[in-house]
Amino acid sequence: MAASLIVRNVRPWGGPLRDVMILDGKIAPDGASPPAGTPEEDGAGHILLPGLVEAHTHLDKTMLGMPWYRNEVGPRLIDKIDNERATKKALGIDPHRQSMRQAIRSVAKGSTHIRSHVDVDTEIGLEGIEGVMRTRDALRDHVFIEIVAFPQSGLLARPGTLELLEEAMRMGSEVVGGLDPCGIDSDPKGHLDAVFALCGRFGKPLDIHLHETGELGAFSTRLILERTRALGMRGNVTISHAFCLGHPDPALIDPLLDEIAALDVRIMTTGAPSRPVPAVAPLTRRGITVCAGNDGIRDTWSPYGNGDMLERAMIVGLRNNLRRDDEVELALRVCTEGGARTMDLPAYGLEPGCDADLVLVRGESVAEAVVDRAPRPLVVKSGRVVARDGRALAEAP
Amino acid sequence: MAASLIVRNVRPWGGPLRDVMILDGKIAPDGASPPAGTPEEDGAGHILLPGLVEAHTHLDKTMLGMPWYRNEVGPRLIDKIDNERATKKALGIDPHRQSMRQAIRSVAKGSTHIRSHVDVDTEIGLEGIEGVMRTRDALRDHVFIEIVAFPQSGLLARPGTLELLEEAMRMGSEVVGGLDPCGIDSDPKGHLDAVFALCGRFGKPLDIHLHETGELGAFSTRLILERTRALGMRGNVTISHAFCLGHPDPALIDPLLDEIAALDVRIMTTGAPSRPVPAVAPLTRRGITVCAGNDGIRDTWSPYGNGDMLERAMIVGLRNNLRRDDEVELALRVCTEGGARTMDLPAYGLEPGCDADLVLVRGESVAEAVVDRAPRPLVVKSGRVVARDGRALAEAP
Repeated sequence: MAASLIVRNVRPWGGPLRDVMILDGKIAPDGASPPAGTPEEDGAGHILLPGLVEAHTHLDKTMLGMPWYRNEVGPRLIDKIDNERATKKALGIDPHRQSMRQAIRSVAKGSTHIRSHVDVDTEIGLEGIEGVMRTRDALRDHVFIEIVAFPQSGLLARPGTLELLEEAMRMGSEVVGGLDPCGIDSDPKGHLDAVFALCGRFGKPLDIHLHETGELGAFSTRLILERTRALGMRGNVTISHAFCLGHPDPALIDPLLDEIAALDVRIMTTGAPSRPVPAVAPLTRRGITVCAGNDGIRDTWSPYGNGDMLERAMIVGLRNNLRRDDEVELALRVCTEGGARTMDLPAYGLEPGCDADLVLVRGESVAEAVVDRAPRPLVVKSGRVVARDGRALAEAP
Repeated sequence: MAASLIVRNVRPWGGPLRDVMILDGKIAPDGASPPAGTPEEDGAGHILLPGLVEAHTHLDKTMLGMPWYRNEVGPRLIDKIDNERATKKALGIDPHRQSMRQAIRSVAKGSTHIRSHVDVDTEIGLEGIEGVMRTRDALRDHVFIEIVAFPQSGLLARPGTLELLEEAMRMGSEVVGGLDPCGIDSDPKGHLDAVFALCGRFGKPLDIHLHETGELGAFSTRLILERTRALGMRGNVTISHAFCLGHPDPALIDPLLDEIAALDVRIMTTGAPSRPVPAVAPLTRRGITVCAGNDGIRDTWSPYGNGDMLERAMIVGLRNNLRRDDEVELALRVCTEGGARTMDLPAYGLEPGCDADLVLVRGESVAEAVVDRAPRPLVVKSGRVVARDGRALAEAP
């Protein structure tokens, strides 16, 4: 459903005013002439960005649009995991309906690409995967959705899960997921051998949640990096959260960062204000790709979140104490280009030949767009308008 | 300018639906009958809260409504202080106009009380104080503004400042300010003796910025507490930021917290995501009053902020990992009742007899109001409507 479109009077990344022409869903070379009757949009001087990239969320379990969930869950990670698995069906969290709601919300806020982890466990089975796959297909012309088959409740600790994960990959999940090989499965070798084997079998990348902090997280990271190197997975592994990289001792993390850079392992951060987090600027300076995501939005884990990747850029900025304009712009690059590199999007950007996946944001400068987070005037996917004035054209169920 | 008003169909703190009657600017006792012709507002089932309390900001130096300021300032605290003092006049940051803009923005977002630190230094002199006093008077019917005379550039380190601070108190500032007695003035005894002496001379409370972390901040805190006790200032001292109380070693901070509780010293936090911060829940459990503020909003220090104390409650919640509904409500209590106790507001709350300073917020629950931060349907000051549907009735210059 690629389309042609002229977007007039926009400022790419806050630079000088220009028109952008889109031919068949691609940004046209400068000087290309549009076919007669090509529709036009007036960008009114707003800033043009490539679409925002939501590189880590959980579309299948948001409760957006449902009655308020009163959270009385315990403080430990396992409390949240166990509560969720036990209550997901009772609460009627339908993965298709809920992923439609969140994905359409994301479109309204300017995200053109979403990587969603989707729970696979012995309670929900493959219903989450099926539901989000239906959403992925239904919204194909509005947003690109990539599915990570995610063993949220543990992999080896809950027999039957590995087989389900394998089936999720056979069904067409794009990425293999994993989770805290020490903290949840208590078998780091077993867990990592299993998920890397799935990657090998299906020729797919890995995106593993790693909440483990300090020395424990550093140990798991080392095991991940060893396998990445040994199995030739360079450029095909993402570590999500990687709280251990927020440890203040350079003696612990610098050797890991060197290896992460060498193996082109990508790091996903939410800029979690209450946790140690990887430091965006130093990692970027080392050449490491850092991306960001909203993680769970209004689910049984946490009530926060609205799917806005500009707000996520703000939180990443606040967490990393990014105040100068160039620093705030870095936070936004994490939420755009960093996500695109993590998802290996082949034609992302504002250059001629890139996919016309675009968002207009309000602000005199890029930094102002981030701190204001005003409604997005226009969102374009493959040359088609998919949202306008903060509202998506697709209707949520 | 107190007025009478009936607000129908509201849910105080998210509780059962009721009507609230206001007589002459005060919440009337249950069963009181309104005089004929009393105006009415339909609360449409929204949650009723006492007005939000912005307990720490800098009204005099926001750049709201001015051209975007490109921040290229260095990373140290002193870089920000020196840059600001040097550029404030050149940039044309008029304290009256700018404080009007921010205060009216705050009213639109439901704040009925503001404590503002206002710079006093040898460059700006008392112009900031004069400008914010004009705003305080001009907006008297819209929002209560309290002024802290604040030696932002240091007190003893810059001769002449103490005399200016004394003059600011004589002019009618409500609170004596202070700043990092070790880190900026390098003379903790001299700095603290000077500001406590001003408190004694004018019979006013103290609100001191303390950015110093770890052992240094703990040392300064000890000196503050010693003077608070010796000078009979119990209940009259606020420590703003108090990053040192975010130190993880209980052996360092527990004795301080005991003394803070005993002396009823109030702690102001922004929930700064990039700094150690006092932990809201444990401090509250000890009986310590914790309040919150937005600090500087879009100034030469930082581009972030919009004056919304619901957003501040969200950031305090995120920073303190407050996820359960009762925890998110605690974050909101900090941004309402905590601020009111810090400012010693004599008749704050929703009980009969309290000042009718109220805000309606949207949400099924209090927690939803915080995470959604939807525009405020109605803001009332002394029984008069001052903002509606997210817009203040006062017009900003």
